[in-house]
Amino acid sequence: MKDDPKPWKTLDSTYLHRQPWLTMRRDTVQLANGRIIDDFYVWEYPPWLNIIAINPDDKIILIRQYRHGIGEVAYELPAGVHDNPGESLLQGAKRELLEETGYSGGEWYEWMRLSANPALQNNISYTFLALGVKKIGGQHLDATEEITVHPVCLAAAKEIIENGGMLQALHVAPIMKYLLSRSQTSL
Amino acid sequence: MKDDPKPWKTLDSTYLHRQPWLTMRRDTVQLANGRIIDDFYVWEYPPWLNIIAINPDDKIILIRQYRHGIGEVAYELPAGVHDNPGESLLQGAKRELLEETGYSGGEWYEWMRLSANPALQNNISYTFLALGVKKIGGQHLDATEEITVHPVCLAAAKEIIENGGMLQALHVAPIMKYLLSRSQTSL
Repeated sequence: MKDDPKPWKTLDSTYLHRQPWLTMRRDTVQLANGRIIDDFYVWEYPPWLNIIAINPDDKIILIRQYRHGIGEVAYELPAGVHDNPGESLLQGAKRELLEETGYSGGEWYEWMRLSANPALQNNISYTFLALGVKKIGGQHLDATEEITVHPVCLAAAKEIIENGGMLQALHVAPIMKYLLSRSQTSL
Repeated sequence: MKDDPKPWKTLDSTYLHRQPWLTMRRDTVQLANGRIIDDFYVWEYPPWLNIIAINPDDKIILIRQYRHGIGEVAYELPAGVHDNPGESLLQGAKRELLEETGYSGGEWYEWMRLSANPALQNNISYTFLALGVKKIGGQHLDATEEITVHPVCLAAAKEIIENGGMLQALHVAPIMKYLLSRSQTSL
């Protein structure tokens, strides 16, 4: 875009941590105005995935999980990390939905791309929309996961979000986009 | 909620970095199933603020800014960090809007609370809705900020989001909630 802010130049880049669950780098960057920031920290993560899964009763499959950062149990979408180079983003999303909820099948679409923090994180969170999913089995959770599964109607999902029952912005945004697509818009 | 996942117990907590721009702690936690995670990292941040500011022409005041994590210039809401204990969240939001865009005034409401990452971060991002803001001056930017200001109509904001021009989930979610509130919903 004309007159857009200019990208920074990276003058130096050092990895402080480089482990699967925590990769952090310190960049020295130069701004368009010439100013230099010596220590700009960026966290590198693999792509994240989440799923808006709608069952044949037009209910959205939500989960509840304890989240230690905020110290609360809250509603979320089924979600995970894409850390297996052998599978596509879509395959990863299907696997995460099945493992966390026991739901599978239906028609799948790529729905939305977002960032949790474009300033400090390098990864994108991909939302898939799965229409017509069915419960085909139980959960297969990691030993550190405790997740309950809650199919709710769209009006209830809207109410949960508006009452602060779902805080994860990466999940709220694509659900709001879905609710908007299902409403009679006249903007 | 009945049968809800149980919160974890924090057995030990150590600060690895404790500086205004990077506070990081390592917790040792015990899950409800007895399992212990020795090293769970949490980033502590002050509250974050952003503003849906609507001018008398029913346009939303967006900004464009380079974001080094994703390495792109993108649309965002005016936003900032609440790092001054002497001012309220509302005062901080009004100050950020004025500094970043030159807009002020109007009727202000608390609009939404979200988290960028409830698992790994302790802070909440607050969105304020400001109806009827007017441009009263120029920008007052930090030396490391380069920000352009773009009032756009609501239909254009929706299109920007749907075309991937705004990636910050903390900003997309409250805008989507606003668009939904302005549409004729029939969920």
